[in-house]
Amino acid sequence: MNFASDNTAAMAPGVLDALLRANEGFALGYGNDEQTRTVERHLGEVFECDAAVFLVPTGTAANALSLAHVTAPWGGVLGHEQAHIMSDECGAPEFFGGGLKLIGLGGAGCKLSRATVERAIARYSGHVPHQVNAASLSITQATEAGTIYRVDEIASLCEIAHAHGLAVHMDGARFANALVRMNASPAEATWRAGVDVLSFGATKGGAMAAEAVVFFDRKKAAFMPERRKRAGHLLSKHRFLAAQFAGYLNDGYWLTLARHANAMADRLADGLRGAGVPIVWPVEANIVFALLPRVLDAKLKAAGAAYYVRSNTLAGDDVTIGPDQMLVRLVASFATVEAEIDRFVALVRTG
Amino acid sequence: MNFASDNTAAMAPGVLDALLRANEGFALGYGNDEQTRTVERHLGEVFECDAAVFLVPTGTAANALSLAHVTAPWGGVLGHEQAHIMSDECGAPEFFGGGLKLIGLGGAGCKLSRATVERAIARYSGHVPHQVNAASLSITQATEAGTIYRVDEIASLCEIAHAHGLAVHMDGARFANALVRMNASPAEATWRAGVDVLSFGATKGGAMAAEAVVFFDRKKAAFMPERRKRAGHLLSKHRFLAAQFAGYLNDGYWLTLARHANAMADRLADGLRGAGVPIVWPVEANIVFALLPRVLDAKLKAAGAAYYVRSNTLAGDDVTIGPDQMLVRLVASFATVEAEIDRFVALVRTG
Amino acid sequence: MNFASDNTAAMAPGVLDALLRANEGFALGYGNDEQTRTVERHLGEVFECDAAVFLVPTGTAANALSLAHVTAPWGGVLGHEQAHIMSDECGAPEFFGGGLKLIGLGGAGCKLSRATVERAIARYSGHVPHQVNAASLSITQATEAGTIYRVDEIASLCEIAHAHGLAVHMDGARFANALVRMNASPAEATWRAGVDVLSFGATKGGAMAAEAVVFFDRKKAAFMPERRKRAGHLLSKHRFLAAQFAGYLNDGYWLTLARHANAMADRLADGLRGAGVPIVWPVEANIVFALLPRVLDAKLKAAGAAYYVRSNTLAGDDVTIGPDQMLVRLVASFATVEAEIDRFVALVRTG
Amino acid sequence: MNFASDNTAAMAPGVLDALLRANEGFALGYGNDEQTRTVERHLGEVFECDAAVFLVPTGTAANALSLAHVTAPWGGVLGHEQAHIMSDECGAPEFFGGGLKLIGLGGAGCKLSRATVERAIARYSGHVPHQVNAASLSITQATEAGTIYRVDEIASLCEIAHAHGLAVHMDGARFANALVRMNASPAEATWRAGVDVLSFGATKGGAMAAEAVVFFDRKKAAFMPERRKRAGHLLSKHRFLAAQFAGYLNDGYWLTLARHANAMADRLADGLRGAGVPIVWPVEANIVFALLPRVLDAKLKAAGAAYYVRSNTLAGDDVTIGPDQMLVRLVASFATVEAEIDRFVALVRTG
Repeated sequence: MNFASDNTAAMAPGVLDALLRANEGFALGYGNDEQTRTVERHLGEVFECDAAVFLVPTGTAANALSLAHVTAPWGGVLGHEQAHIMSDECGAPEFFGGGLKLIGLGGAGCKLSRATVERAIARYSGHVPHQVNAASLSITQATEAGTIYRVDEIASLCEIAHAHGLAVHMDGARFANALVRMNASPAEATWRAGVDVLSFGATKGGAMAAEAVVFFDRKKAAFMPERRKRAGHLLSKHRFLAAQFAGYLNDGYWLTLARHANAMADRLADGLRGAGVPIVWPVEANIVFALLPRVLDAKLKAAGAAYYVRSNTLAGDDVTIGPDQMLVRLVASFATVEAEIDRFVALVRTG
Repeated sequence: MNFASDNTAAMAPGVLDALLRANEGFALGYGNDEQTRTVERHLGEVFECDAAVFLVPTGTAANALSLAHVTAPWGGVLGHEQAHIMSDECGAPEFFGGGLKLIGLGGAGCKLSRATVERAIARYSGHVPHQVNAASLSITQATEAGTIYRVDEIASLCEIAHAHGLAVHMDGARFANALVRMNASPAEATWRAGVDVLSFGATKGGAMAAEAVVFFDRKKAAFMPERRKRAGHLLSKHRFLAAQFAGYLNDGYWLTLARHANAMADRLADGLRGAGVPIVWPVEANIVFALLPRVLDAKLKAAGAAYYVRSNTLAGDDVTIGPDQMLVRLVASFATVEAEIDRFVALVRTG
Repeated sequence: MNFASDNTAAMAPGVLDALLRANEGFALGYGNDEQTRTVERHLGEVFECDAAVFLVPTGTAANALSLAHVTAPWGGVLGHEQAHIMSDECGAPEFFGGGLKLIGLGGAGCKLSRATVERAIARYSGHVPHQVNAASLSITQATEAGTIYRVDEIASLCEIAHAHGLAVHMDGARFANALVRMNASPAEATWRAGVDVLSFGATKGGAMAAEAVVFFDRKKAAFMPERRKRAGHLLSKHRFLAAQFAGYLNDGYWLTLARHANAMADRLADGLRGAGVPIVWPVEANIVFALLPRVLDAKLKAAGAAYYVRSNTLAGDDVTIGPDQMLVRLVASFATVEAEIDRFVALVRTG
Repeated sequence: MNFASDNTAAMAPGVLDALLRANEGFALGYGNDEQTRTVERHLGEVFECDAAVFLVPTGTAANALSLAHVTAPWGGVLGHEQAHIMSDECGAPEFFGGGLKLIGLGGAGCKLSRATVERAIARYSGHVPHQVNAASLSITQATEAGTIYRVDEIASLCEIAHAHGLAVHMDGARFANALVRMNASPAEATWRAGVDVLSFGATKGGAMAAEAVVFFDRKKAAFMPERRKRAGHLLSKHRFLAAQFAGYLNDGYWLTLARHANAMADRLADGLRGAGVPIVWPVEANIVFALLPRVLDAKLKAAGAAYYVRSNTLAGDDVTIGPDQMLVRLVASFATVEAEIDRFVALVRTG
């Protein structure tokens, strides 16, 4: 019953297999090996474009490198105030971006509305050179609340951003979970809707430590190799990074893994609802936020359940936590099994 | 016959086994798992001190994080002009260090002499606040030339550095190769001789992507967790980083692997010398620099040999490359086998 | 009728005189001249402590250097969301501070309350190393709204800050204007109340381009000379920077200038109130915010009046601007004369 | 007899006059005043092009802002190892440039030869993304040795730089002194020879604290306003910065001042040569390097002479200092008078 995070899971079998297969013979370092080339091409096929791809070991690296690449040091990055880049990366975007400014915005379910972005752009435009001007927009897919942006929402945000010269970054640490919930292709959910650069996560989905920065317009990636290298994010035995992606992408495996994780989240949400527990935001990915009775905490923990309790501060204005309630984040992964879900729900049900 | 680099090898079997064992069940992320704690303790035991340990995926990260932590932005890092930090990390130390200055010094066999360091400290002291002052010294063990610093040499360099307030960093990407050549313990070869912080490499030795920043005085590591995190170098599924070290360190495996690599380098050097090929620097680790006849290049490459030819510029003043010669770097690893060595030597011998 | 800003005024006569007196003979550069030493001592006397003083040409430099010196790159600076450092320095604190984070907080009249600071500290503490933690507090004296912090308010904010390990910075671009309104000495209004470092402004008060960073504890200023130098803020003909302060501080001249500016602001506020114009915040320094009828704008401008109209967004929640009103900032300086005030009021009065 | 530096002089009368004239009435801040516009236009006329001009208070700021603007963080700046940017700015270029790398090169008389630059470009090209690549070239006019680059030399260096994609920066802290020695216009000595950006110094020439960054191609200056502002180098009472330039440039005053300074240096060099003192480098600006007998030091100092003795280390390989000699730098300025020169020479002559 480990619902603490999807990064508490191990490697998915298909990723491990690819890793094992890569552990043969010699290969040129620093991404000059054949497998890296193949995976880069494969990612281009997945996204149906001539993408420039940069594999890195962490999501923080993917986000910070991306944002720094599309935002000048005197520029601002608009994003949701609860986004990972805002509160969980210890200032990585500011560090990589030479002191750029993160501008946190509100929004129910950790989603940004077009109106909010529009107001923020108006607020952070002009008064040059005194004021930092908005230079990019970062949206998280799926969000920290487990909600997702639909294709039309993405397109609308990108439209307003591009109309004002902002680049659009998508933090896709849980891109797969969002995608399989939509009736859309990877291309439709990204560059065709206007996304310029994607942090495409594999780690949470079933890899060990593998994320891809994907520039959909190759020209925008000029000097990204230097940026990645000087950040210490170019792996020498790069084939193992490539192998993780090879396994992850192979034959739609990544989508299969995500579908399972989402299904487990659905089962959990359904079970909890059936037990009378309020579910806070729409469950659109692999994350469930529930308002559990506080009294259950000790019992659930004692039974081996792992999850995080979120404070009121973090919840945002769109949630009211009752005095006897705790806001609990429950994350399912490819490794979550039905029995765990059912046991957890049963524990809740018996109170 | 892949002698291009020790990072062209795959994972050593013992490391892979540990990785497989780690791929079980759930584990807390970001280094809060049990295996990470165990490995950190183990590293403390290896070095016989209460070390503060930070695992990261690349050597560039380990070096740059270390140097930034012991050098203020207005400080200078003394190092050999051929050192990896100087010419192969695309300015990572400057980036991580907020614009610190790398000061490259000469020296035969890529080694710094006490006199050279002493002169450099004198040169880069005073004239405050106009001049960047020397703030740290970085030595590479084993060096880019495949030579090593003996314990008394390290102690001598550390003494002069500390006498002037400089911290001492050791880039130990090939620490194991150096250590097994000396009659010294890990502690003797580092902090007992005065080293403050070590980039302890496992990747080149047989891991996949695992390096440890080791502060021998825990107090000097304050805020290193934040520094690592904001650089994107705190892995979420951290257990796999820990597992690599667990396998690498287990029962002296790392030393066994290094002894093999060194033995292969010795065999190669002996064979080439027997074939009349001049070996440039003492072979003290797993690297051989040889002055091969230029005419052999095509033949060796055709036979499948991989190695790098180094230009005159990079060679330094202590080597003269004849007009018909090429300076070739040949690196052995844990994965190098005698048959490859013998085949290569035979190819050279037959001319 | 130039009320656009106090920086639209020229040099005050006493400052100019000092500048002229300094323009004699040769003097060592970079602050090694006698006048600089004298001024540094004088500032120590003004603040009744052994202060470390660094003169710089701009307030943005003073603020950014100060904040960077007391805040690690992974730290956060708490300040009012309308503060100059937040919205008018184009990211200077982030740049100087290696990517530190500015955390804007609300508060009526551009002032921070103890409760607000307390909540922010709680919000930005812990969750290490993922979250940027609050590391310093910056308060503006006088504030952007023309209000001031009284000694007990400063002491209360400093107490809560220090209790949690935060350093306290005061942006004193209009320190003199605030001080002369209080029954307090410079020492009482700063370090005795807990302020660690002050940006002590002279430019707006009557100098040409001169600000002083004042560390009340000399030990906290270690390496500040290097930080200033590498920012390009150590003037070579430093005597002219010192001379401005010499003239400004001489015989209480700075307080006399500030008293005049404040008196002009009072006269303006009184006149406008008499004309039925609402004054938004208490006039405690040399700034008046008034809700003028929109219809007057063209007429006033045509008559030569200069001022800035502030948008609703910038006003904060504590002000309501009626549909026919405009929020106008009117700043008086040492150079403002009664006749201008009276003419402006008359223009408003006649509608 | 103050020959310590040209920055030990005060303001030239014509600059002071302009400053006094500027001290009238109100003027918009931050460079939005009329005088600033006029001076910017005037500078364009001086250089016969549509230049983008940015006034700043120090040469270090001018250099660091310029270099950061034309060099990516992963780029290298080629310059003479004795250049001010290399050894006297405490890492300002690295700080402003996000950790760019300064690459110091040798050369007699502090001048770079085409061959040296060509070799350096070859050395710092390729091996991407591991190696920092040369991205810009900085030449100093006049040099730290008091020598100058002739138009054909500048053109030759720019040609080789541009051929490899490097931008060219000229540190013209003593641009006037160099220019009046040549039969060339400002345009010919800069952009027509290929210079992209110039730090045009006025401070050493007779201003108080005023330097101009001049981009000869306006397009290359995009976002420079933001860069200057966030560095704290946009002065609020900007008119006084403009006024200094107005006075300096007025009617060729800057050239008159420089001619005087050079003539004084010539007189000094002639006098010393006549006294049997070797002059080290050609006296082409306002600086004389002489090998004075060591025994004279105490006597000269006692008589009130001020100068700097340069160590062997700093002298470079092209000078040999005898055991009884000291290498002395003597700098003349607009304020130097013949009588001082003659007195100094007489003191040397009498031994």
